[in-house]
Amino acid sequence: MARLFHAPLSPFCRKVRLSLAEKKIECELVEERYWEQDPDFMRRNPAGKVPILKIDGKILTESAAICEYLEELHPEPSLMPKSPEARHEVRRLVGWFDDKFHSEVTSKLLNERVYRKLQGTGYPDSSNVKAGSKAIKYHLDYMAWLLDHRRWLAGDHMTLADFAAAAHLSSLDYISDVDWNRSEAVKDWYAKIKSRPAFRSLLADQIPGFPPPAHYADLDF
Amino acid sequence: MARLFHAPLSPFCRKVRLSLAEKKIECELVEERYWEQDPDFMRRNPAGKVPILKIDGKILTESAAICEYLEELHPEPSLMPKSPEARHEVRRLVGWFDDKFHSEVTSKLLNERVYRKLQGTGYPDSSNVKAGSKAIKYHLDYMAWLLDHRRWLAGDHMTLADFAAAAHLSSLDYISDVDWNRSEAVKDWYAKIKSRPAFRSLLADQIPGFPPPAHYADLDF
Repeated sequence: MARLFHAPLSPFCRKVRLSLAEKKIECELVEERYWEQDPDFMRRNPAGKVPILKIDGKILTESAAICEYLEELHPEPSLMPKSPEARHEVRRLVGWFDDKFHSEVTSKLLNERVYRKLQGTGYPDSSNVKAGSKAIKYHLDYMAWLLDHRRWLAGDHMTLADFAAAAHLSSLDYISDVDWNRSEAVKDWYAKIKSRPAFRSLLADQIPGFPPPAHYADLDF
Repeated sequence: MARLFHAPLSPFCRKVRLSLAEKKIECELVEERYWEQDPDFMRRNPAGKVPILKIDGKILTESAAICEYLEELHPEPSLMPKSPEARHEVRRLVGWFDDKFHSEVTSKLLNERVYRKLQGTGYPDSSNVKAGSKAIKYHLDYMAWLLDHRRWLAGDHMTLADFAAAAHLSSLDYISDVDWNRSEAVKDWYAKIKSRPAFRSLLADQIPGFPPPAHYADLDF
């Protein structure tokens, strides 16, 4: 069986978990305290990051590269469109969330509110929290603008772009950092994706010392 | 004709320039002072970043997504292998350089030595320069280890992984931040890639106020 070394709130791991579950690839989850940089862990991935996927006798790292691999070997159900132009749009948005959204929002809020405590590196830096809370508004508005033109973020079908975005937003929702009242279109989109069977494992996550809010696992949030 | 909005020393733009040139896609280069966030520029890419490629009547952004698009529409000469496992390895390494190497090395050295002056944001922060100069050693050693097993970084053929790595190293070489004596294997690899016709445009770059060192454009460096 495949095995995923992961951290529960990591949006990169969540994107891979969603892809695996949507494609019905059975996978054992192994929690990794990646910040301890244990030698076995560093041997599996010298980049010192999760996710790490053991599958088909191989060790795969880098979430975007893992998702493309899963798509190529398990093309159904498809999370990538067929035309090069539409595929570019999916990859552009995956990059948007995993690079820009992550650096402006997720890393700022999640690192300060959760990882500082887990890793014992001190109190939250309120300037980061403030910057992240401000930036998420602009990103939610951008998503609302996309969803005004499209059924899903990258077009009329659900793709890896939706999983990348939902991975970030679900991690932030775990710490109550998403204002679902800001855009009805974004809330409707999230309700659709949250109700998929592939999402269930994410909604069952529990971080010791950080209980999720009641609405986190509620499909009618 | 295609048109690329770029910044000369941006490794992300250089990777796209190498792909375009290797595939012999004619392209006009337009320099973009992206940090000024001019409204026309932000309309082309709300992420506020270069590269931006106008091609086939479309506007494409995010360097990894652009390179995959070029590969799908112009598959020859190929910069991606055929098997999903080998394709994963290329994408993993592109991620390694564009994410890890960039945050630990390129951004630290290039931002401090060049962009602070160009953008008028003050003097270099020596702790960043020191951290970048230290980290590049570890990365050069990792490249040497890869090249000990392989002719090119991701296997026996030149791929996007080599272009991603060469894009970062060439930008750093412009400011004399690469110690080519550290590894003969890395130097030989760079000499091979530097002598390709696709590399010529990079070697002709000139940033006003920052003349390149003599060895920068020398194929026998």
